Parts: sequence; C-alpha cells; structure tokens
Amino acid sequence: MMKIFGHQNPDTDTITSAIVMADLQNALGNPSTAYRLGELNKETAFALDYFKVDTPELLTTVDDQDTVILVDHNEFAQSVAGIEKATPYMVVDHHRVAGFSSSEPLFFRIEPVGCTATILYRMYLENNIEIKPEIAGLMASAIVSDSLLFKSPTCTAFDREVCLKLAQIANIEIETYGLDLLKAGTDLSDLSVDQMLTIDAKVFTMNGISARIAQINTVDIEGVMTRQPDIETEMNNAIAAESLDLFMFVITDIMNSNSQAIVLGDRIDLVEKAFDTTLEQHAAYLPGVVSRKKQIVPPLEKASVS
Amino acid sequence: MMKIFGHQNPDTDTITSAIVMADLQNALGNPSTAYRLGELNKETAFALDYFKVDTPELLTTVDDQDTVILVDHNEFAQSVAGIEKATPYMVVDHHRVAGFSSSEPLFFRIEPVGCTATILYRMYLENNIEIKPEIAGLMASAIVSDSLLFKSPTCTAFDREVCLKLAQIANIEIETYGLDLLKAGTDLSDLSVDQMLTIDAKVFTMNGISARIAQINTVDIEGVMTRQPDIETEMNNAIAAESLDLFMFVITDIMNSNSQAIVLGDRIDLVEKAFDTTLEQHAAYLPGVVSRKKQIVPPLEKASVS
Repeated sequence: MMKIFGHQNPDTDTITSAIVMADLQNALGNPSTAYRLGELNKETAFALDYFKVDTPELLTTVDDQDTVILVDHNEFAQSVAGIEKATPYMVVDHHRVAGFSSSEPLFFRIEPVGCTATILYRMYLENNIEIKPEIAGLMASAIVSDSLLFKSPTCTAFDREVCLKLAQIANIEIETYGLDLLKAGTDLSDLSVDQMLTIDAKVFTMNGISARIAQINTVDIEGVMTRQPDIETEMNNAIAAESLDLFMFVITDIMNSNSQAIVLGDRIDLVEKAFDTTLEQHAAYLPGVVSRKKQIVPPLEKASVS
Repeated sequence: MMKIFGHQNPDTDTITSAIVMADLQNALGNPSTAYRLGELNKETAFALDYFKVDTPELLTTVDDQDTVILVDHNEFAQSVAGIEKATPYMVVDHHRVAGFSSSEPLFFRIEPVGCTATILYRMYLENNIEIKPEIAGLMASAIVSDSLLFKSPTCTAFDREVCLKLAQIANIEIETYGLDLLKAGTDLSDLSVDQMLTIDAKVFTMNGISARIAQINTVDIEGVMTRQPDIETEMNNAIAAESLDLFMFVITDIMNSNSQAIVLGDRIDLVEKAFDTTLEQHAAYLPGVVSRKKQIVPPLEKASVS
C-alpha cells in the first residue's frame, strides 16, 4: 500500500492532490492511500465538505518499509519525518527543486504551472482514466486556491483552461464556487496567533540561510495587523526555537492582490534588499505581491547569494 | 538560444539526447543548440557517422546569462562548470535525483526507464512532432548503448518496444546495427590508461563519501587486466588529485554480462560490504553486474549509510 501525501501545514492543493493521486493510482492498479501531514485549514475543509470527500488520515512519520508518493512538494524539509528513509516511487509538483535526493531513479515530474492539480489532470488524460465529478471538484478547488481565482501571477493560461473543464465535470459555476471557497479560507476569527503563523508556513534553506515564510489570506489586512504585537512575540519565539535567520509573515489581501509583511530575524536585510524597501516597525507593504513561490522566494534567494 | 547538454565524460545516450532534444525544442519553436561536455567515445562517433549527424560543439562553462536544458543527468557534480548560475528550463533524465537545486519551478522529468531517449520518444508523441529517420537512429543507438542490446537489468519492456519502433523509422536491423555499435565502443586499442579511466566516469557523493565510478565496455576483460599496474597508478593519482574516498573501475564484458572491478581508496570496505566480497589484489569479479546505475550505485549508497 503506497502512502501519498503533500507538504506540512497543508493547503487545499496539497490535500486534494494527495486524494486525487490516490484515486489515479488506484485506478492504475497501484493500491494507494492519501494522508495529510497536519490539520486542514478552513478553505480545504470547505472543499472536502462541498464534494462530500472524507478527510485523509494524519501521517506523522514514515520509515524504510514505506513506498511513498510526494505531491505538491519535493523538499525534504517540507515533508514528513523519516522521508529520507522511505522509498520514493513518484514526485509530482510545481515548485522549485531543492534538497531532494534518491538512491534510485523514480518518476519525478515538475512542471512550472500554477497548481499540482493541473499536472494531475494531464496524467488522467495521458492514462485514459475518467475523472469522477467529486475528483474534478477537488482539482478545480486546488486551482482556484493556488491561483486566487486566476489572479495570481503563478496562474498560467493552461491552469485556467483546465480549471474551467474541471468545473464542468464537477457541475459547479466556478466564479461563485471559487469566491465561496476563498472566503471560507479568510475566516481567521477563531485562529490563535500561533495558528495564523503555521497554517501555511514553509521553511526554505537559501545559501545557508534558514528562512521561514508564512502566509495567510484575508479580506482585511488591517484586522490582522491589530494583532501585530502578539504576532511578533510568537515570531520571535519561533526564531529562537528553530534557529531561524529570518521569519517573514505575509498577510495577503486576496481581493485587491496586495500583501503586508511582518519581518523579524537577524537577516531582515535580505527582505529590504529583495524588495528594495525599508521596514517600518518591522513591516513592509508589498503592492501586487500575492505569490510566495513566484514573487517572494526567488528575490529572497537572489538577495541571499551575495 | 537555449543550451542543451548531457553529462561530463559523455556516452551515446548523453550526446544523442542533447541532439534529439535540440531537434524537439526547435520543432516546438524554442531555438536551441546541442553541446557536448567532452570528447566523443568511439561508440558515439560510430552512431553519428552512421546517421550522418554533426558532432555538437564543446561547452566548457555556462553563466547567469544562460538558459539551459540538462539531459541524461541532473546532478550538478556531473554537469558543466557554472551550472549553479544558469537558469534551468528543463531536465529530462533517467537517473537518481541528487544535488539538483533551482530557485524557480521548471520542467523536471525523471522516469525510471533504461534510457533518456525512451522519455524523449514519449515527448515527441505527446507533442505530435514527427521523428525524422536520423533522429530515430540516434535514439535507437542510445537505447542499444544503455541497455547493452536489451541485456542490462536497467532495460524495461518499454525501452525495448520503443527501440524497435525507432529502428523501423531509422530503417535499420537492430540486432546487426546494435552489435556493430557496441563493438565500435569496445575498441580500446589506442586508448591510454587515463582515457580508459575517464571515458565513462562519474563522481557520486554518498553520505559525505566521494566515490568515482568509471566503467568501460569490452569483449576481453583479461586484455584490460594485463594493464592493471598502470591502471592502479593512474587511479591512485586521481584519488590524490580529487580527494576521492573511493575509486572503482568497472570493466564490463558486454557479451557475457559480467564485470571485473579494480577498487582503490580509503573506503574500499564499502565495495566489499556492498557486494559481499573480499578484494584480491585490489580486484573483485562481479558476476551478472553490468549496470552502474542499478547494480553498483544503490548497494554502495546503502553500504555508505552505516
């Protein structure tokens, strides 16, 4: 039984891609089970509930007896504990390649598209496997989520085209469903500051610098910023506990496609350099920035080189 | 203009895959040029001559102005100088994934098949591009070379099926042509010992251990072993010059599918452990072993863990 999972601090693409990949592998005759590496966020819970799909079980560790498929990530630092001992059968992802290593060849497929679901769609076609309505609904949800309803610069024409086809199969009106889905994810009312900082957090190693970049979607940046003192306390705790050089918390307004970042750590200079800005009260406004992958990690990586 | 190349110490799959990928990318409207990172071996020269295809130009370095496609390798240690500065557009390979890193997503496609040409064949089909006879001939040559005419354990049923289709397009009788091709590669008569050790050599980093594994094909293992004293002198020079922990020189009898290995360095214990053997006069007979990728690297990697 193959174990399939996305990254830590799971988002909609990571959870649904594990479920979808398990569906595809089972259809291909490879017995597989989807897992999650953490709690569902509200957006993902909304999608699973809407399409009446069960939540995958929690996976905390793998070992040398496990054959695994990684979806929506490839960096070991973002994966499950024990990943370096498991046998990887396949990786399907749309992020940069870093820190992955295998002793034998495997299926490893990265494409520079906006969403893992878009690649999975292609794989259904290539293998002539029919896409069931609820599977199509999950894949469409993933594309809406990763592309902020086609507004993110990570969204390609192909992502959009695939999403519209999937919406037809799933029998949803994509603008209406998509906005409901995104709004479900911006309900931060009962989140603790700690939860806000971990709900979508990834650690990146950039030329020896350890940077944690957390992101949260909202329709009300000001509302989140009223909690800045508590947020900074928690961020400083994390910097000490995880020996981070940099912690960047990105609060993204999904309606207007802008972000506010709170930045702490010894290497805040990298953020100032990467975005040609000066932090004020540990914060910077980043107009037009919504994509960690495309608009935050690459300039930070560049800034870390020199 | 995109630069396309395979690994250092090029073999037939690496050279022909660069040429074939350039053909494919140009057909797709992406202006591209194929390069080589070293001298052609005799087998590859035979194939290019047979199908009347020009030898790619030598590439010694790339920089931050270059957009590149890596074929038949992904480990930076096996690539061109300056590779970490270039922008990778695509990787197509059939080896383990290790030591690769990019700051942005790219096309990255690894499949556990016997030959890069087999994946390229799939890409022609997926993109509906016609395969010209000389291109088919080069791809068939690569599969014959990597699979030792379908005898290597790395050869999958799909590699063989693809090779037979390509042979039809290229209008060759695969058994006859294949044996001629392999024999052209076993002509070691005018090779220096140094050339024998570099013609197909790769350096692997395994849990901190630096291991160089060189391989040569022959129909006469004994003939090569008569040069053992000179070979050992050169191997010891390389160990000192490159700070290697291990140098394994594998002499493969392509007719009978066996190998003899000469092993030197501080960590020869890894070879003894990996193959459950005791070296005698620095050498070990490895019955049935012909594939570095499938039968040498994985057991060595395992032995290096503890």
